[in-house]
Amino acid sequence: MDIVNFPNSHFVLARAVALKGFGGRRAGELLVIDRDGACQGSLFGGAANSDILHRSAEMASSGKQVDLMTVAIGDRDAVGAGLACGGEAEVLLNQSSALPAGFTGRLSRRVPVALATVISGPHNGLVMAVSADSDIGILNPLGASEDRIASLKGRLRQALARRFPASQIEESEGEVVALEVFSPPTFMVIVGGGELGTAILNQGLLLGWSGSVVDNVDEGLSIVQKLGSNDALIVLSHDHGIGIPIISEVLKGSASTYVGGLGSRHTQEKRSELLLEAGFSPAEVERIYGPIGLDLGSRTPEETALAICAEILAHISARDSRPLKDSTGPING
Amino acid sequence: MDIVNFPNSHFVLARAVALKGFGGRRAGELLVIDRDGACQGSLFGGAANSDILHRSAEMASSGKQVDLMTVAIGDRDAVGAGLACGGEAEVLLNQSSALPAGFTGRLSRRVPVALATVISGPHNGLVMAVSADSDIGILNPLGASEDRIASLKGRLRQALARRFPASQIEESEGEVVALEVFSPPTFMVIVGGGELGTAILNQGLLLGWSGSVVDNVDEGLSIVQKLGSNDALIVLSHDHGIGIPIISEVLKGSASTYVGGLGSRHTQEKRSELLLEAGFSPAEVERIYGPIGLDLGSRTPEETALAICAEILAHISARDSRPLKDSTGPING
Repeated sequence: MDIVNFPNSHFVLARAVALKGFGGRRAGELLVIDRDGACQGSLFGGAANSDILHRSAEMASSGKQVDLMTVAIGDRDAVGAGLACGGEAEVLLNQSSALPAGFTGRLSRRVPVALATVISGPHNGLVMAVSADSDIGILNPLGASEDRIASLKGRLRQALARRFPASQIEESEGEVVALEVFSPPTFMVIVGGGELGTAILNQGLLLGWSGSVVDNVDEGLSIVQKLGSNDALIVLSHDHGIGIPIISEVLKGSASTYVGGLGSRHTQEKRSELLLEAGFSPAEVERIYGPIGLDLGSRTPEETALAICAEILAHISARDSRPLKDSTGPING
Repeated sequence: MDIVNFPNSHFVLARAVALKGFGGRRAGELLVIDRDGACQGSLFGGAANSDILHRSAEMASSGKQVDLMTVAIGDRDAVGAGLACGGEAEVLLNQSSALPAGFTGRLSRRVPVALATVISGPHNGLVMAVSADSDIGILNPLGASEDRIASLKGRLRQALARRFPASQIEESEGEVVALEVFSPPTFMVIVGGGELGTAILNQGLLLGWSGSVVDNVDEGLSIVQKLGSNDALIVLSHDHGIGIPIISEVLKGSASTYVGGLGSRHTQEKRSELLLEAGFSPAEVERIYGPIGLDLGSRTPEETALAICAEILAHISARDSRPLKDSTGPING
């Protein structure tokens, strides 16, 4: 998912909700068009920007709250825009007034959100957003029934269980509904780098994650404030002067961000002691994975990186990391 | 570790036991020189071959059983041989008659082996090899005491606990001893490929492992016969016509090779049923990791590959894959 700073004033949010062609995974792209026509984010490398801007301007003048348009990009234009090949997409546009309050705030804080937009049918214009721990909001201009709202909410919760950005258009109860999951790929903040930091970044790259190595407190504090429930703080540095303030910042923020710390059991005890002294509760300190990583008998930096990323994945997915042969639950996340 | 076919007749085994320079990890290289001077395997990209061959010929004519030589390779010669940079190495040469019986057989079967060669001191020429489950053999030309042998065996067992090829020269009890661990990096046989097969190979590459995808029974049978205790069979294909004979071959061979099979719980049940019908015991069938991989909630091929490789690593290291924070044992393997 693109990182965008949503304007405080009116804007239009455009994103592809159905794709044919284009080659490879392109889910999670956003285009935000402000009232002056300025763009943030990107769809299809910008190859369809003029069409989308035109439609957005039409919505502004007509007052249409939600619109769906088909975008077709030929191979030549696609390659010119840096895409592997062309394709066809359904692009959904919501005016910011047709997005529930709190929706953009959640996206900015990297909280996974599921959004339903009714595009046609008796409840055209019904828009609803939920996150894992709360109903974010609903716009119900045509007075859909409690039952209809409850069934749609069920579908959204189901969709949200996926950790990945995804979208689909489905016909349901005589309506056409776009169901979307906005979910940022894991971002890792790695405090202190070295050979292991590089190995973790390489492992993350393979998984489609991204990350950043930080070496001082100020840089660390500013970046960890952006971490959400799919993200991870990995403290490799044994310097508590750097580690403790950055860990503290995360413990004060999102209750679900992964926090792990490298080091011997002695280092872990000292870390816990300092955090307890700083006023955190034993339960808060217990959130920290330290010694970091799954118990795989890792020896090389690459194996340790594997053990750490596997632990992050299990944490995000709320799984117990035991062999699947010993579990009885569903196999895939 | 190189794969070499040891000659049945006399040969000299050369390998670096101490390294300065060369850049990067070069452990595990072997050079085997047969009685006609023909070489198998490689040391330093062949840059020192003529010196080593010369020394080997001298040993053959003098009857010297064990020899240690210093090899120095300049940057220019090194780059010409495909190395990053030059360096200096101590190369140890054992005549095949100065290797315990069973040693080369273990290497051929990819069994990790630790070898001690006494280079100087009162027990010069003492050579001993052990594997995890057995004492392979000892050459004791000068009659070292039971105590000396027991203490050396202790050092070898300690060294063997490492999964990686490693070597060092150490002075101990008035002797100079080369201690070596011959341990092949994990090789994965993947039955049935596709996107997941590619993801597993990519994950293995990152870990310094290697692997091969096989698509038919004959190819599979011939390749799995070479698997040792660091290796893995990964059956992705749901075609039991391919999977069962290849799994059977591994279950009949090394008792410690990792065996995992993709598929639903229904597929696993059918697989177990067919293997029990084929005469395997419940305990033998229980060895198979199926559904394959750790329970990380994996969704993408890359995440599933991570879950599978993490499970293989835990199996090889005899670890339980739980978060290290919940364990009390040593952190690294």
